[in-house]
Amino acid sequence: MPENHFDKIAIIGLGLIGSSIAHAARRAHLAKEIAGHDASADVLERAGKISFCDTLHADIGAAVKGAQLVILCAPVGAYKSIAQAIAPHLAQGAILSDVGSVKGAVIRDVGPFVPAGVHFIPAHPIAGTEYSGPEAGFASLFDGRWAILTPVPGSDGMAVDKLKTFWKGLGSQVDVMDSGHHDLVLAITSHLPHLIAYNIVGTAHDLEKVTEGEVIKYSASGFRDFTRIAASDPTMWRDVFLNNREAVLEVLGRFNDDLKILQDAVAQGNGDLLFDTFTRTRAIRRAIVDLGQDTAAPNFGRKS
Amino acid sequence: MPENHFDKIAIIGLGLIGSSIAHAARRAHLAKEIAGHDASADVLERAGKISFCDTLHADIGAAVKGAQLVILCAPVGAYKSIAQAIAPHLAQGAILSDVGSVKGAVIRDVGPFVPAGVHFIPAHPIAGTEYSGPEAGFASLFDGRWAILTPVPGSDGMAVDKLKTFWKGLGSQVDVMDSGHHDLVLAITSHLPHLIAYNIVGTAHDLEKVTEGEVIKYSASGFRDFTRIAASDPTMWRDVFLNNREAVLEVLGRFNDDLKILQDAVAQGNGDLLFDTFTRTRAIRRAIVDLGQDTAAPNFGRKS
Repeated sequence: MPENHFDKIAIIGLGLIGSSIAHAARRAHLAKEIAGHDASADVLERAGKISFCDTLHADIGAAVKGAQLVILCAPVGAYKSIAQAIAPHLAQGAILSDVGSVKGAVIRDVGPFVPAGVHFIPAHPIAGTEYSGPEAGFASLFDGRWAILTPVPGSDGMAVDKLKTFWKGLGSQVDVMDSGHHDLVLAITSHLPHLIAYNIVGTAHDLEKVTEGEVIKYSASGFRDFTRIAASDPTMWRDVFLNNREAVLEVLGRFNDDLKILQDAVAQGNGDLLFDTFTRTRAIRRAIVDLGQDTAAPNFGRKS
Repeated sequence: MPENHFDKIAIIGLGLIGSSIAHAARRAHLAKEIAGHDASADVLERAGKISFCDTLHADIGAAVKGAQLVILCAPVGAYKSIAQAIAPHLAQGAILSDVGSVKGAVIRDVGPFVPAGVHFIPAHPIAGTEYSGPEAGFASLFDGRWAILTPVPGSDGMAVDKLKTFWKGLGSQVDVMDSGHHDLVLAITSHLPHLIAYNIVGTAHDLEKVTEGEVIKYSASGFRDFTRIAASDPTMWRDVFLNNREAVLEVLGRFNDDLKILQDAVAQGNGDLLFDTFTRTRAIRRAIVDLGQDTAAPNFGRKS
């Protein structure tokens, strides 16, 4: 058995991330039993067909009972009621964690329900695809990506270390930071990009003078890149924006200020400003590729 | 010899698109001689090492002399001086075309210099990668993509058909439309996405509270998708925005109006509006994949 082995882990929510954790935990033999729960009977049935959990439970209490690690993988808007439901069933000494894209709101919603003797350590794996549901998961999703842990004041150091080791076992690199800083970092690296992508796809959809058929046919000229993340799960993303309002509005304000400068440069024909702006952005792309966070292949290595 | 064979074609500008045309024309045996010219001696030398042209010419007049098809593949800001330089050397009956991302400005800049007896047919292949230069080209770049021809009033029908056949020989599907409509369609499918991508990468770069290292490490959460097109050639893109001002400002205005609605929804916690917006954008992604304009593989099929 590896040192990071658990007798039982419970995964609450069996979509893309929950199912990927199960696949990756199984790949690395991180648990004797992987128990799964989902609020949807349909999702539970589909999860049963793929069989990435050892046990599946319609009863959320039964899922978490005796688990040494419980991971919430539902949309963050559902966390409060989940926390209330599982609290009486959590084992003493268990680690309660999650995968939500916001962390301040998770601490606000879940924290008050965590029983004494349970280690609450919020977490967020920086990984995903544009697909949703139990069929979308796969074992290598976290390989080489980062997982961020945001311990709360008083979090037990040994429990934090155990959770770190677990995420490394899933294939991730691990960072630890304050929840407030996490929410600002993710506002710029993830939440704003999604909002912008959803928005531009909506704008294209609504133009009267250009048909949707034209947008689709000629999308390889840039637009299609945005449609991938704009195809992400709507419930998850609604909950992100409802729960990271302040940081999202802060970076969106900066984005709008910067865009106004580019808009003026276009209107005034200021080629030097445009050229300078378009030049300095190349270095960030190169750094992302050099650090293994994206492929160097042209067009992301697409096959079509 | 295929029916779409030319004795000589001349490619003016040997970057990503020019070199890809040469590779693809050679693959399909579309020309007995492919002549190449570039204003940069360094690019000419690098093109010579890869050897995708049959002849290379520092003298632009010698490159186009006797060519039945001349294709301008330089940044559109250089077209006017190129047109002046080649006009005296163009063969009677030749087709003069280009690959510029804007078409109204190309007609404005090149049209006045086209000699009688030369068929001027602007064109734009909807294909590319984030890489630039003669080493970036490859034969399959246009396969399955669209090329748009924007004939001018009085364009000869047989010459238009010949150019259509040429682009099909390169692997493209071909559409014909008015230059004004082209410029509006591309403003939303290509120019606005690039402006937005350049802008968000710039915003991330300038934030004081989030380091560039953090942006890079956690970029797999959405941001990295934008950095690809924000790594595109700065000269080319400066010229696009200087030469499609009106259409870009029109779609940017719509984008800003739509973004204000989403911004208000975030500020006011309007989850229903967010959910509805995030739901309808999925259909466009599906249509793009169904029509073969993008891959269905998660994360574009990236290997890292």
